[in-house]
Amino acid sequence: MKEEQGDESHSSVIKVGGAVVEDPEQLKELLDEFTKIEGPKVLVHGGGRSATKLASQLGIESQMVGGRRITDAETLRVVTMVYAGLVNKNIVAQLQARGILALGLTGADLDLIRSHRRPITPEGLDFGFVGDVDRTAGERLQQLLQLGITPVIAPLTHDGQGQLLNTNADTVAQSIAVAIASAGVSLTFCFELPGVLSNPSDPSTLIPHLTEKDFQALVANGTIAGGMIPKLENAFSALRAGVGSVRITDIHHLQGGTLITL
Amino acid sequence: MKEEQGDESHSSVIKVGGAVVEDPEQLKELLDEFTKIEGPKVLVHGGGRSATKLASQLGIESQMVGGRRITDAETLRVVTMVYAGLVNKNIVAQLQARGILALGLTGADLDLIRSHRRPITPEGLDFGFVGDVDRTAGERLQQLLQLGITPVIAPLTHDGQGQLLNTNADTVAQSIAVAIASAGVSLTFCFELPGVLSNPSDPSTLIPHLTEKDFQALVANGTIAGGMIPKLENAFSALRAGVGSVRITDIHHLQGGTLITL
Repeated sequence: MKEEQGDESHSSVIKVGGAVVEDPEQLKELLDEFTKIEGPKVLVHGGGRSATKLASQLGIESQMVGGRRITDAETLRVVTMVYAGLVNKNIVAQLQARGILALGLTGADLDLIRSHRRPITPEGLDFGFVGDVDRTAGERLQQLLQLGITPVIAPLTHDGQGQLLNTNADTVAQSIAVAIASAGVSLTFCFELPGVLSNPSDPSTLIPHLTEKDFQALVANGTIAGGMIPKLENAFSALRAGVGSVRITDIHHLQGGTLITL
Repeated sequence: MKEEQGDESHSSVIKVGGAVVEDPEQLKELLDEFTKIEGPKVLVHGGGRSATKLASQLGIESQMVGGRRITDAETLRVVTMVYAGLVNKNIVAQLQARGILALGLTGADLDLIRSHRRPITPEGLDFGFVGDVDRTAGERLQQLLQLGITPVIAPLTHDGQGQLLNTNADTVAQSIAVAIASAGVSLTFCFELPGVLSNPSDPSTLIPHLTEKDFQALVANGTIAGGMIPKLENAFSALRAGVGSVRITDIHHLQGGTLITL
């Protein structure tokens, strides 16, 4: 576990979800905590509810299937505006105010994350302009980190043919952590709960350490369910691909929450 | 005139306005022409009419004074979404498809362009969240260009205190060209006409070469008027600050149009 926190040569990838980035007070606290992290770091953000709100103001109906937004052409315009514009650039400006050399990026910038449009499912479900990641330019990310730059990444990718694609922010964070894993990296998923809980309505039931074996048992007995399952599958997939450690936590405990290992 | 086109060590800064970037056919032609430019290059874009359209869909009234948008908090959100999100990232994705290592930026990214909020005029006119440029990080831009990166810049700046500000795209292009002028740079303002015309409704009256003395005479006799005056003042100001040459032209003649010299 060379890549544990405390080792200053390692990088940190922090992913924050929609609820945090649209509440100015929570965002401020998150950015304060993020600023304190030592060593090279990357912030990956979502922005879901602001996009849903803007879409509804524009009379576009947001369709969600299995936690994934169905992205028609109009919805892609909205998420490009909200994620890559509004949310991303406000975070960048606020990090600059904290002395961090932030650089807002999508997967199209610097050809960072190539993806392909998700094929229509056998059941005939078309997710629209949604991209599944093909490759992430780890060396280029490392170059930015070595220049003292802090990438702030919005969850949009591109297909190399000029088409932007909407990609799940957890997946983007995971693909970035994996791409720079060889230099040592920890990955933190920040969401509204303090970590993985045995009882989601009781924060005192926090599971401080979770292995893949524990996970399988807790899914089998129903303790872990719903949206937490793909989040944890992402975590184990990142660990298997070389990421040193994964945490699931809230913005108040970036170094705490649930530590996930294989 | 060491910095003339043909000298491959020099950089090109191309500014394109709103009408071009929102018409897919014109944008495609512009990006094809831009791709052909040899040597390091920067694209600065506006996006005015899409922002006006989105603002109107959201029930926000766009106020313009002297060619400058009055930017209240809601309008700043809209221009951040449209300029830095929709327009910028679509251009970046389309340049990647042409093999260009594009990087979309605002003045907040990499602390590239610092500005201050424009003071209320003696007449009591408040432009809102509009930034007047204080300094542009020329060395950082040069570093990007030396890495083979093509910056694509949306006309937003920041005050270093976390506040994004809306800045005129011609001014952004000029400040960037000046910031990298020591290494040799040409600046091209692309708009809907083929250049500076003696009779704006007759393209055959193109003035191929314009000096500052010519300009003063043509303003005095009324040949040059309206929005062309600040555009040309920007041009002369750039030349005085060391930019090698300035052109005003349309997307079909990036190497033609009106060549402006002191």
